[in-house]
Amino acid sequence: MTAPDTRPTIRLKPKADARAIRHGMPWVYADDLVTDRRTKALAPGSLAVLEDAERAPLALATITPASKIIARVLDADPQAEIDQAWFSTRLARALALRETLYDAPFYRLVHAEGDGLPGLIIDRFGDTCVLQPNAAWLEARLAPLTAALQEVTGVAHVLKSASGRARALEGLDDASGPLAGAPPARIAVPMTGATYIADLAGGQKTGLFYDQRPNHAFAARFAKGARVLDVFSHVGGFALAALAAGAQSALAVDGSAPALALAEEGAAATGVADRFATRKSDAFAALETLATEGAQFDLVICDPPAFAPAKSALGQGLRAYERVARLAAPLVAPGGALMLCSCSHAAELAKFRAACLRGVGRAGRASQIVYTGGAGPDHPLHPQLGETGYLKTLMLRLLP
Amino acid sequence: MTAPDTRPTIRLKPKADARAIRHGMPWVYADDLVTDRRTKALAPGSLAVLEDAERAPLALATITPASKIIARVLDADPQAEIDQAWFSTRLARALALRETLYDAPFYRLVHAEGDGLPGLIIDRFGDTCVLQPNAAWLEARLAPLTAALQEVTGVAHVLKSASGRARALEGLDDASGPLAGAPPARIAVPMTGATYIADLAGGQKTGLFYDQRPNHAFAARFAKGARVLDVFSHVGGFALAALAAGAQSALAVDGSAPALALAEEGAAATGVADRFATRKSDAFAALETLATEGAQFDLVICDPPAFAPAKSALGQGLRAYERVARLAAPLVAPGGALMLCSCSHAAELAKFRAACLRGVGRAGRASQIVYTGGAGPDHPLHPQLGETGYLKTLMLRLLP
Repeated sequence: MTAPDTRPTIRLKPKADARAIRHGMPWVYADDLVTDRRTKALAPGSLAVLEDAERAPLALATITPASKIIARVLDADPQAEIDQAWFSTRLARALALRETLYDAPFYRLVHAEGDGLPGLIIDRFGDTCVLQPNAAWLEARLAPLTAALQEVTGVAHVLKSASGRARALEGLDDASGPLAGAPPARIAVPMTGATYIADLAGGQKTGLFYDQRPNHAFAARFAKGARVLDVFSHVGGFALAALAAGAQSALAVDGSAPALALAEEGAAATGVADRFATRKSDAFAALETLATEGAQFDLVICDPPAFAPAKSALGQGLRAYERVARLAAPLVAPGGALMLCSCSHAAELAKFRAACLRGVGRAGRASQIVYTGGAGPDHPLHPQLGETGYLKTLMLRLLP
Repeated sequence: MTAPDTRPTIRLKPKADARAIRHGMPWVYADDLVTDRRTKALAPGSLAVLEDAERAPLALATITPASKIIARVLDADPQAEIDQAWFSTRLARALALRETLYDAPFYRLVHAEGDGLPGLIIDRFGDTCVLQPNAAWLEARLAPLTAALQEVTGVAHVLKSASGRARALEGLDDASGPLAGAPPARIAVPMTGATYIADLAGGQKTGLFYDQRPNHAFAARFAKGARVLDVFSHVGGFALAALAAGAQSALAVDGSAPALALAEEGAAATGVADRFATRKSDAFAALETLATEGAQFDLVICDPPAFAPAKSALGQGLRAYERVARLAAPLVAPGGALMLCSCSHAAELAKFRAACLRGVGRAGRASQIVYTGGAGPDHPLHPQLGETGYLKTLMLRLLP
């Protein structure tokens, strides 16, 4: 930890937009910063005073010299102390929003830049928080961060998840483990009328995704009496919400047997196991097989992993989304509903929608667009990064 | 009514995209159609067989020679009969979606192209439908349309509203009146926990807007114990939903005394009149006055009329949205929520959001974007017109 008065300085180039930083833009791109030898030598996660080209201090930033986003603003006050009290203030601000929004303590508590904490993700599961420190400045401050988190929320258990992809770019290890208490391996999560089982120790990322919650709820409005197909189901996100809302049956397809086992446990905990079935399969293969079986569903949801995680994969990714739509559409009964999701940063809504509609059209089905959704409000966005919402969810109705 | 075999033909120019029509595009722009003297002489609302440049029939269309959107596709079958049975099929398809989505018969039943009925808007208020025939082809077929509507929905009363702006462009009159039964002047509408009073006879458009329903519900999540300000309140849309959800108080501002009177009746019907107040005022003036009074609210909603109804008004409209945000932000208590809405077709989301954030920034407030919403699912979009969603709703949280 450097004391405020001995902090190094980093400086914007004259062409950089210092006004944007003054107006709250939290990112500095490498092209906009003077990257002399001294700056390049700073340890990833160092704190530095960000100055404009005329050496006037702008803000306190953290720097990762090797990253394209070379600096991230932490505080408008260049002399701010980043200690437990600082973390407590930010965490309390984040908690207040979630306590307004949710009746039970199950939500994303911190959504990185959107909550003023660059690189930090915290998901809360009742008395346990799973913390993803995806930036070097956080890794160096886990002790005050964990203390602040317990102080503000009162949770007993804090688990560090080192599964975030950004950690490697920041030069961080992949060692997950407890930071406080004794985090349980599994937690029952009440959400949208169902009970999900989150596997905190072995699961993907934090074992359960909160981002789709409003879309689970929207899809569930089509569930009453419906035959439901949930493809790329993971732990049963859409299927269990639909069953809780009165679906006649739900079939969950996923390539991961452990995920489907959690979905089955969730179905039992929700009291809907008798209407729930799973199929372990590659999703594309399952869609084709179901078509040859002549299967029909009233509600089909496809929530694949990111097919276009980066711009370089956009074309290929959009073709994959189109293929999902083309293969799923024939399984939708006349007048039924088809929900298609993308969690690809690189696939903007208009392109994703066009790909989906191409696929549905190629399947020979006419449709109407009923709903466009995104991540829930526990995933707020920084105002200067409004375009960074990654999750897009479309509900189409396929006409009779 | 022309019999199918004597229908005139209209023809796409060679450069026009006939494939788009085959894939479902319902609009033909004047630039893409051969507009010879014979075509120009067709009466607005005439049915015609739309052909490609090689004279192969594509679809059945209705033509309005003077319009930029010169033809609208009604049916992929060029020989379709547009009679009561045809209307019944489309209306039944539209009704099925709403009956899936809503527990009570209060919704937009038909949303024009999105429901395969170009130019037709129907709002349902229980046993009464308000029908807006905003195109000449509909005006010429009100009898079979009304009969089909009663057959499919069983409603007793149908009111024609001639208030749509498009009617003048189509050469239609502005005479509203009953088409069936004896439509009541006022109806109590249960929605989002509140009861609204719709003034079918004297109100704007259909007396009550259903499009904001999901946004009413989202705003209401911030309402518990909150002091609420609802600017451009009309009949109290956001204010009454917030009071029903437990707001401490709500102040509705509108320039229309009749609208505020309906809001007060609604507050009484909802049982929240003791926490409800109104102020008849120009909205901008009210925002400035409230600031000088030092008023603070935990939730502020601004849902103005379309400031940018057409592209030519975009710059001016965006400045007006920025001004609303700048004047509203100081009234939001630290940590409070600010919902900003636009119903301008011409202001796309990214531009509207930028204008709002500029306004909030100029008021010296930092924010996070919590939610982005649109019109409810009873306002479906045609798949080829996915960009035509007009309503944008942002929820910002203004940081402490």
